[in-house]
Order: sequence, then C-alpha cells, then structure tokens
Amino acid sequence: MRVSGVLVSFFSFELDPALAADPVFERHQRGKMAIIPTVPLTSRDDLSLAYTPGVARVCTAIAEQESLYPDYTWAGNTVAVVTDGTAVLGLGNIGPKAAMPVMEGKAVLFKQFGGVDAVPICLGTQDIEAIIATVRAIGPSFGGINLEDISAPRCFEIERRLDEALDIPVFHDDQHGTAIVVLAALRNAVALLGRRFADLRVVISGAGAAGVAITETLIAAGVHGANTIVCDSQGIIHADRPGLSPVKVALAAQTNYSARTGGIQEALIGADVLIGVSGGTIPESALAGMAPDSIIFALANPNPEVLPEIAHKYAAIVATGRSDFPNQINNVLAFPGIFRGALDSRATTITARMKVAAAEAIAEIVSDELRADLIVPSALDPRVAPAVAAAVSRAAERDGVARFLAPVAIPAVVHSV
Amino acid sequence: MRVSGVLVSFFSFELDPALAADPVFERHQRGKMAIIPTVPLTSRDDLSLAYTPGVARVCTAIAEQESLYPDYTWAGNTVAVVTDGTAVLGLGNIGPKAAMPVMEGKAVLFKQFGGVDAVPICLGTQDIEAIIATVRAIGPSFGGINLEDISAPRCFEIERRLDEALDIPVFHDDQHGTAIVVLAALRNAVALLGRRFADLRVVISGAGAAGVAITETLIAAGVHGANTIVCDSQGIIHADRPGLSPVKVALAAQTNYSARTGGIQEALIGADVLIGVSGGTIPESALAGMAPDSIIFALANPNPEVLPEIAHKYAAIVATGRSDFPNQINNVLAFPGIFRGALDSRATTITARMKVAAAEAIAEIVSDELRADLIVPSALDPRVAPAVAAAVSRAAERDGVARFLAPVAIPAVVHSV
Repeated sequence: MRVSGVLVSFFSFELDPALAADPVFERHQRGKMAIIPTVPLTSRDDLSLAYTPGVARVCTAIAEQESLYPDYTWAGNTVAVVTDGTAVLGLGNIGPKAAMPVMEGKAVLFKQFGGVDAVPICLGTQDIEAIIATVRAIGPSFGGINLEDISAPRCFEIERRLDEALDIPVFHDDQHGTAIVVLAALRNAVALLGRRFADLRVVISGAGAAGVAITETLIAAGVHGANTIVCDSQGIIHADRPGLSPVKVALAAQTNYSARTGGIQEALIGADVLIGVSGGTIPESALAGMAPDSIIFALANPNPEVLPEIAHKYAAIVATGRSDFPNQINNVLAFPGIFRGALDSRATTITARMKVAAAEAIAEIVSDELRADLIVPSALDPRVAPAVAAAVSRAAERDGVARFLAPVAIPAVVHSV
Repeated sequence: MRVSGVLVSFFSFELDPALAADPVFERHQRGKMAIIPTVPLTSRDDLSLAYTPGVARVCTAIAEQESLYPDYTWAGNTVAVVTDGTAVLGLGNIGPKAAMPVMEGKAVLFKQFGGVDAVPICLGTQDIEAIIATVRAIGPSFGGINLEDISAPRCFEIERRLDEALDIPVFHDDQHGTAIVVLAALRNAVALLGRRFADLRVVISGAGAAGVAITETLIAAGVHGANTIVCDSQGIIHADRPGLSPVKVALAAQTNYSARTGGIQEALIGADVLIGVSGGTIPESALAGMAPDSIIFALANPNPEVLPEIAHKYAAIVATGRSDFPNQINNVLAFPGIFRGALDSRATTITARMKVAAAEAIAEIVSDELRADLIVPSALDPRVAPAVAAAVSRAAERDGVARFLAPVAIPAVVHSV
C-alpha cells in the first residue's frame, strides 16, 4: 500500500534589520531547518491515534519485537550529525555552538539529496571518553551516526570505538566521504588518461582525517603503498622520522618504501598524482617536478593548495573542492546516498566494500561522457544519491551487514520561499 | 523585516500490508515527524550561501558573539525530549526504543501547539550519572530540555542537577506539566464552588513524579500542608512510617500534620479534594467518606482511579485524564506554551512563578464560561499555548531569567494528508 501526501508549514518571524540585507545571514536567520509532523493532529481522534491512548500499542509492539523499531518510528530514517566543534571547516576549534550552522547545513543536504532526516548534535565536551559515552547513550534514537569536523587523530579512535559499540553505522564523513569522492574522481581521471592504479606514483599532502582515509582507500583500491608518499606540515612522512604519532607510524609503514625524505618539493619529483588535503599552499616550483600528464586534486577550501590555472601548466586533469571550478570534489556526492543506502538496508555498519561501491556508483554516473573537466558529476546532480544508495545497499547485503532488503523510495523535497 | 513563506514536502513510501489496516499502526508507519530544510537548496548559489563557503561567516560571528546563537541557528527554537524509557505511560520500564513513539508524539504536539521544534532523544542508559552527563553534553544543541517518562525518585535528582548545570530550561513534564494543569483546574473548580485554597483538605493518591510535584505546587499556591495527605501504594505517608525514601521523608514533613495513618479509605475521611495520580483504583466506599460537594480528579490513564459516573455520586466536580470525558487534565495544555514562552524569552530556567503564571493563563481561558464540566480548556483549544507563552515570558522577565524580551510569533502548522 502506497501512502502519498503533502505537508504544508507556514512560517513567519522577525528578522534583525541590521543583518537582513546580508544574503548569508538572511539565509541563516532562525536556522536552516525545522521539524514537521507527518500525521494530522487537529482532532481529538488524531491525538488519540498519534498519542495516548493509541500510541501505547505501538510501544508495546516494539518492546516485544525490536525489529519493528525502524518501521514505526522516525529513527529508521534519522541520522545524528555529531560534532565536538574541534575542526570546523578551515576555522579550527570553534566549539559546539559556532559549529551548529555547518551541522545544520549538513543536515539539510542529507534531506535534500538523500531524503534522510538528520539531527545536528553539537557536543559540549571535547574529551574522547565523554564523546564516546554520549554518542553511545543517544545511539538508540537514530538509525546512523555521521561524525563531523572532529579533529585528527582523535577522530580515528572515536569512530572506531563507536562503530564497535553501536549496531548502527558510524561514519566520519571528513575521512571517508572525502576518500570516496577522491576515489571516484581518480578512477575516472585514470580511465581518461589510459592509466592503471597499480602504476601510479601518488603524493598526498595532508595527514589529517582526510589524508589518512584517502591514503588507506587508494591503497585498498590498487595503488601501491610503495609508490605512495604522504606529507604533513613537517614534510614527507617516513619510518625514521622522529616524533611520529601512532597514526603516522602506521602511515609510514604502509607508504614510502624507498624512505624518501624532504618536503613537498622532494615528494613530488616524478609523481603522477597530487592530492592536496592540507589547507596549505604548494609552490609552483614543486609541481614542475611531477611526471608529464599528471593529475592534481587541490582540495583545500576555500583556497586550493594551487589554483587551477597554475595546476593546468603541469597537469592533464585538475580538480578542486570549489563549486566555481570544474571537477568539484564535494562530499555531498557521497554522504546522502551512503546513509540512504545504509538506512534502507538497515546496515549495522559501513564496510570497506560499501565505500568502494559508493565511489564506483559516483564515477559511473559520468563514465559515458568523461572529459578532463568532467570526471565527477555535479554536486547537484539528482542521479547521484539514488545510484549510490542502491550500490551501498547491495554491498551491505553482499557483506552480510544488511538487516532489510527491500528498497525504499527517496522522498522529494521541494521549496518555494 | 518580516519573512513569510511556505514549505512543501512531498512524501511517498511503502506500508506493511499486514498492519496497514490498523489505524494506529498506519499513523505510526515510518514515524510521525520529519525534518525539512527551511532554505532553498536547489542551485549552486543556494549551496554556497547555506553551506560552504558562506556558512563560515555565520560560524565566525557566533564564535565571536555567542548571543547570536539562537538568532542564526535552529537551536533557539529547539527542545530535546529526553527519556530513558523507565516510566513510559502506564507501561513502565520498556526501554528507549519502545519509548520512541511516545517521544515522537510529544515532539509533534510541541510543534503543533507551540511551534517548537522538538527532537526525541531516547537514551540507552538508565544510570543517573550517565543520563546527567549525556544531557549536559548534548545541551549546547538545544534551547531547552524536556525530560519525559523518567521514573521517580530518579527524575527529581536528574532534573535538579541538569537545571543547575545547564543555562537553558530543564523541565520534567511528568512532574510540572501535570502539576500546572492540576493547579489550573483546581483554581477554576474552587472558584466555581466558592471555596478558597486555604480551607481545602486535599488528598493526593500517588507519590511518584506527578504526585510529588502536585503536592508541592498546591502548597505553594495556598493549600495548607497541614490539611494535605499523600498516599502511596503502602497507604498514607506520615513521618513515623518506616522505610520512607528521602523524597517521601520530605513529603511527610510538609504534609499530614495530624499524622493520620491508614490507607486511602482513612485518608479520604472529610476530604474536599481527591487527586489521583496513582494508576491504581480507589474503591467507592472510600469516596463515601469525603466531605459534601467535593472535587475528584482521577487522572490515571487510560483507566481513571474511579470512573466519572461513580465519582459524580460524591463529587460536585470531576476531572480525568481522558479525552472522552469532560474536564480533561492534559499536559498538552501546558508544555507547548511553557517552552514557547521560555524559548521566546531565552529563559535560563523555568521558575516557580513561570509555572504558576502558566496555570493562571490556562485557567483564565475558560474563566468566563465556568461550569462543572468546563474547568479547563479543550486540549485542542488554539488560544491556550499563545496565552501560556505570553504569561511565561512575562514571568521570566519579572524573575530576571529572561535573556530576550521581544515576542516571537508562533508559526502555524497546517496539514493535509
């Protein structure tokens, strides 16, 4: 039985006149999201069905059979977007309240592109144990946890321990969302240039959440660790470098087999691929050492490590994180469809194969029309999330982490303001 | 500058055919609420205003001036409805997931009647310290905390310590929401009968969250503790009864100065008012001992302690918690307007005077048309929440707990499903 309908919510409020003329602040007045009832509540009968006494029967049914929970509550379609405000955009540790506008933005993108109800949770603690305990405690309220803008290396332990503790997916988007879209873009770039992952010499500039996840994802996808070099603010990471954190010790063990030393200049000598996720800048002189027809993804936002007009002097294919240049590597290509697929399949976790499936689905969307300036779909392409969701659902099933196999339609959201 | 508009959300999903014919389960399919974006997200410009890069300016502004937080995020209009699932309706300790349908119901009533965005948070812990730590940690995400269906006496400590720890209102509705509506109803009942609070002999049957709060509220409103008796499942509470919990020791000290002993039968001898919040039944023979023209509020749900047709044999005015009898004592008369007023005034807490102001506003709505079967407004009366909100806002200002004095309009929510 199919149920369709339309919900209408009128709103009206006062704007602060001093900021009303600023289009950014105007869009953020009173926030960017709201909750609406999806059931009628205007008659006594409505209340007795949606609330007491009727609701008691639904509670009792769930108490007796927990698998009904996602069927008869909103939790099955709902994700918490959790931050501690320690690594917000390029702004750094600005705390939970100042992080809220970003989390709301993420939440509305979840709805717009994936039909996922997402609730921003901005935590008033930056202690790892307290964060883990809090998210575990609120876990039963949600169908998934999207960790956001939590600083490295704390983010790695928080994600790992929460994923072990909870029976719903836990996904740190700054790591895996970025890595998935990079993998999709690199797959298409390599196809366009007639190369193979196994032959690429890759340099990743940045060893934070995104850099670590990209390194691991590309190596899992077929790039040789031997031919991979990761740089942080101290230069090339190699096993003999003193003072490496445990995460960087692990990176050093997986990469840079020839133990190259130096800075980004030395790292890039002979490189086929540069992936910048550092927030810094890379001098043109360093790019000059790269191999011919190279690939440069300069993903720092809003200021790429190198601007496209410079990068194009040395690279055959260039991508950035910005919407005003071609080939935007934007996480919104990944996270709405990934959670849509994870929720639809009621996955207990998000496996490596689900991530790879998401990357392949993103790459596939534009595979018939590949050009040097079209290696990823537009962030607004409505085909992406459903394709990613379907691929992720299927991979969840293959990996034995799905609890539900029937597909669920993505609700469309339309606005006129 | 006034901004108005309309948001439209289409939805469509599959219903389980086995339960589709059941109207209660049909209403609960996929839950009773959803999140909608309140900003457009269909163009590249939309994304750059609502998300990166534009959002960074809003984050920076809040980081520099925290008082902008409720202006430029949804948190200023958002309340968490928090439960640990220990005392859900009459169902008892059914845990967090089975409690969710009730919390969603509460959340949609918050929106429908108060224009408040409410997020259900069902906690996977029943440990007092863990609950307090969790709610403190998520506190910055919200403008208020509504505690719900947390068992007594745990609820008292949890509410008190959270209210001390957080700079936003913390309100346990099972205590204060019920007490406020009882106070409103009793005010009108007493006015109708030409009595005075100070002369009433009152028996409260039930010493859980609601019973304790009603006792304290009525004594604060002018009922003499000397003339008040509280009963629990062991009978009359008096100072010499062995094994009293600390909460009941405090109750005994405030009430029953003549140290009456026995059960409900003994308690009711000569009583003018019986307020049942026990969930048990009260035998007709006990009612026979009450004073003439008494007042009986039998609030257990769905089965009142005594049915109205029996109660009316002994009482001039009868109220229950049920919508199918006259005089429904329903918390929905209180909580949407109380939080509306608290959010509008950006109150740091909900004071005793704010609660009394709410009760007076509820009572006032029907004060010109009082009848024995009309001592409180209908739960669906749209005049109630705005009147309560205005009274609560003014009381917050008088008590010096308001951080913002301008009124905010209540958005109307209209549905056609």
